[in-house]
Amino acid sequence: MIFHTFTESKLRAFTERVFIKMGCPLADAQLAADVLLRSDLRGIDSHGVARLSGYVRLWEKQRINATPNVVIAHETPTTATVDGDGGLGLVAAPFAMKVAIEKARIYGSGWVAVKNSNHFGIAGYHALLAVEEDMIGISMTNASPLVAPTYSSERLLGTNPMCYAFPAGKYPPLIVDMATAAAANGKLEIAQRSNQPIPEGWVQDKDGNASTDPHLLKEGGSLLPLGSDKDHGSHKGYGLSAVVDILSAVLSGANYGPWVPPFVSFLEPPTDPVGEGIGHFFGAMRIDGFRPAADFKNHMDNWIARFKRSETVDPSKSVIIPGEPEYAAEIERKKNGIPLIDAVVIDLNALALKLGIEGLA
Amino acid sequence: MIFHTFTESKLRAFTERVFIKMGCPLADAQLAADVLLRSDLRGIDSHGVARLSGYVRLWEKQRINATPNVVIAHETPTTATVDGDGGLGLVAAPFAMKVAIEKARIYGSGWVAVKNSNHFGIAGYHALLAVEEDMIGISMTNASPLVAPTYSSERLLGTNPMCYAFPAGKYPPLIVDMATAAAANGKLEIAQRSNQPIPEGWVQDKDGNASTDPHLLKEGGSLLPLGSDKDHGSHKGYGLSAVVDILSAVLSGANYGPWVPPFVSFLEPPTDPVGEGIGHFFGAMRIDGFRPAADFKNHMDNWIARFKRSETVDPSKSVIIPGEPEYAAEIERKKNGIPLIDAVVIDLNALALKLGIEGLA
Repeated sequence: MIFHTFTESKLRAFTERVFIKMGCPLADAQLAADVLLRSDLRGIDSHGVARLSGYVRLWEKQRINATPNVVIAHETPTTATVDGDGGLGLVAAPFAMKVAIEKARIYGSGWVAVKNSNHFGIAGYHALLAVEEDMIGISMTNASPLVAPTYSSERLLGTNPMCYAFPAGKYPPLIVDMATAAAANGKLEIAQRSNQPIPEGWVQDKDGNASTDPHLLKEGGSLLPLGSDKDHGSHKGYGLSAVVDILSAVLSGANYGPWVPPFVSFLEPPTDPVGEGIGHFFGAMRIDGFRPAADFKNHMDNWIARFKRSETVDPSKSVIIPGEPEYAAEIERKKNGIPLIDAVVIDLNALALKLGIEGLA
Repeated sequence: MIFHTFTESKLRAFTERVFIKMGCPLADAQLAADVLLRSDLRGIDSHGVARLSGYVRLWEKQRINATPNVVIAHETPTTATVDGDGGLGLVAAPFAMKVAIEKARIYGSGWVAVKNSNHFGIAGYHALLAVEEDMIGISMTNASPLVAPTYSSERLLGTNPMCYAFPAGKYPPLIVDMATAAAANGKLEIAQRSNQPIPEGWVQDKDGNASTDPHLLKEGGSLLPLGSDKDHGSHKGYGLSAVVDILSAVLSGANYGPWVPPFVSFLEPPTDPVGEGIGHFFGAMRIDGFRPAADFKNHMDNWIARFKRSETVDPSKSVIIPGEPEYAAEIERKKNGIPLIDAVVIDLNALALKLGIEGLA
């Protein structure tokens, strides 16, 4: 695989140009670019600039409003529903998280559901906004229906990620940011490009048969929930995905389950919506609403240190602290640049040509 | 396997007698019995009266305070830390959940971490207290260290359950109540009794080798996180278990990770505690803090109806709505009684003899 490495600033400027060309106000374009760049910096290549053409495709289909009026539609002191007005989730999500943080500043916690939104990038970006304020950050979203619940042959749920982020002291924040499917769609895309079989337990075909074919989703196949099969707890992965769907969409008034308007290009939105756009859910809790933040951070450091020195099965593999590899990638890529695979660079330059903006060269 | 069936009232009276004999105040004994009976009624046999001897064993070892002074140690308008004073989690947990509900009534949401507690029964009992108030209920706890994180050969986490409960309209509440391990310890105990091999992916031996031996935990083996292995997302199960541990214990000031004082009889508490007792975490959010409760319930009904009519892989197995089997069991067992296996009845009668109280006959 051929990689081209770009500086953060070059990719950021390019990404802003794309969003500005779509008609986004400058501040929105900068914010949306920041969310995507953070993903690339953190090594989550599937959710960064590689998705730019996807956002443009939805905008061209008039499924993304470039100039939304994002507002609080309903609220109590510590809860709110935000209406994303059909705009970028990359913009509505940080708005909503900031509402949650402001509520937490005053009342100890804040919880915001979002309707009428679109794909919001990586869940971790939004949760980390709370961590900067010595709060615990929570972030989740529903997504394109590609996952079959246990026993089902239908795609009724998304990979519906949930993220919990906690500040630590001397260590980087501990961040659990995970799809509730056995394998994220991004992992399938890698196997598709190299045409390699995938492990059993990631997908099933359209009739529910086990398979190792990475191309099955385009033929009616489904991703499997975390746990893969009933014996190994797939009902738990299904349950977690349901929780994310309900908090993000049934609570906010967005579309849920099989009605979620898909981001993937091979699916069309249902013609019988049950809500508006896709949904997200965010939370912020002040650490010092429970105990002094310094005490919490000291014990987080002790937790992390203990897990890092765990005995391991294979001496070459140490226990990974959630969020640590992404933190390391961010430092490395800020310094040395962001590698993109050839196919992504070609795609982005074609996008530039189509939009009449300066490409990546 | 031989079953004996008892009426709810008979088992409840017996359970209350045990807690009263331990020295619990009457109201506490009634509440603790209610939590255990609810588990038996809901078909979660591993967490009901079958655990009574375990509570008595910890009380005999002076690890459970029968007359605790459960108090709010710290609070903001929507957050609190409760000190369980070393008493029964079965008592501290409903107390804490009620604090969360009261805060939610006033401010929209309430969040309570508990330290210095013990085993709290089924997570679902506590979360359902919120559902009765048209709130979303959240409940979690850390537990005996029996689970090895991905790549580890050490037992550093508990099966750490998390529970989310949502009210519906014409359907029963949707409740996701799940251990974050691939298989709960209760499933292993069933295999131990029948001496049957268990599926690969549930446990590993003390050196981290795959195994199907249900007896391994007593020989230093570990339960595996949900996902079972790295390829199938065990780092996600590990991450979820870490989230439960941090919210329950690092946030409250309880013991976390390998320092959690164990409930299981084959492990002793660590001699170098990092906090007080075990920890729990509870949340309550008013539905109408986001949208009218009637709208939410209508859409919950639509969600549930759609999933129930899903196409299935095997026509004999329909998609299960989380919480529905337990709801059905509760109706059936309230009517027809609670079946206990022979071994549990023998154990409970031995307990009665030891305590000098009336047995089950």
